Amino acid sequence: AAQFNSYCTLKLQNVKSTTVTVKGANPCWEQDFLFETNDVNTGLLIEVWSKGMIWDRALGYNYIPLTEVQYSNEEGSCQQWLALEAELVMRDGEVVGTKNPTGHSLLVDCRFELPFGLMVQ
Amino acid sequence: AAQFNSYCTLKLQNVKSTTVTVKGANPCWEQDFLFETNDVNTGLLIEVWSKGMIWDRALGYNYIPLTEVQYSNEEGSCQQWLALEAELVMRDGEVVGTKNPTGHSLLVDCRFELPFGLMVQ
Repeated sequence: AAQFNSYCTLKLQNVKSTTVTVKGANPCWEQDFLFETNDVNTGLLIEVWSKGMIWDRALGYNYIPLTEVQYSNEEGSCQQWLALEAELVMRDGEVVGTKNPTGHSLLVDCRFELPFGLMVQ
Repeated sequence: AAQFNSYCTLKLQNVKSTTVTVKGANPCWEQDFLFETNDVNTGLLIEVWSKGMIWDRALGYNYIPLTEVQYSNEEGSCQQWLALEAELVMRDGEVVGTKNPTGHSLLVDCRFELPFGLMVQ
């Protein structure tokens, strides 16, 4: 297998976070990120990149519409394997999805946090 | 003025390069990047980001169609101030331009390199 050196970026609206770069064909980042938004009609764009000496190369994308995200304060409760896809699907200048699976997938735990102390039964 | 800590990314097709992060309201990166392509119907997307502790925030974008790029082996010969704009313009899932100027601009020297030794008169 090719020696990958990869990282993820997470984008919500005009804000972006980036993981550290991890080596290997089965990278594991195990990082937590928190985003704030007041627009549920948008979504989280996850990009996986292979870091190179000169260029970084996109390995795949997945888009999670916020309407599909559940409420939970329990870490690990919303894990799902997402297909990494090769292309973005756009509408009116905004990403609305992805297409063309690359065969890679990414395990993500994505949830809305409830106000401190509140629980969903 | 806000204390900015900013960097640029340059994207051509599925390849990306990133500058170092520079402090101040008038950052200067002075970095050279080389891209290879065989498709003149695409373009270079330049993004300027403000680096934060948790999130990076997009300061603006500019898209240079490759059909507007000149051939030159002389560094500095193709300098132009580009308007940084707030939004991407998409067509069929691809960036084709930007809109809504932010008031910021970026000085870029973008050119096609000729094979070594060749000059344009």
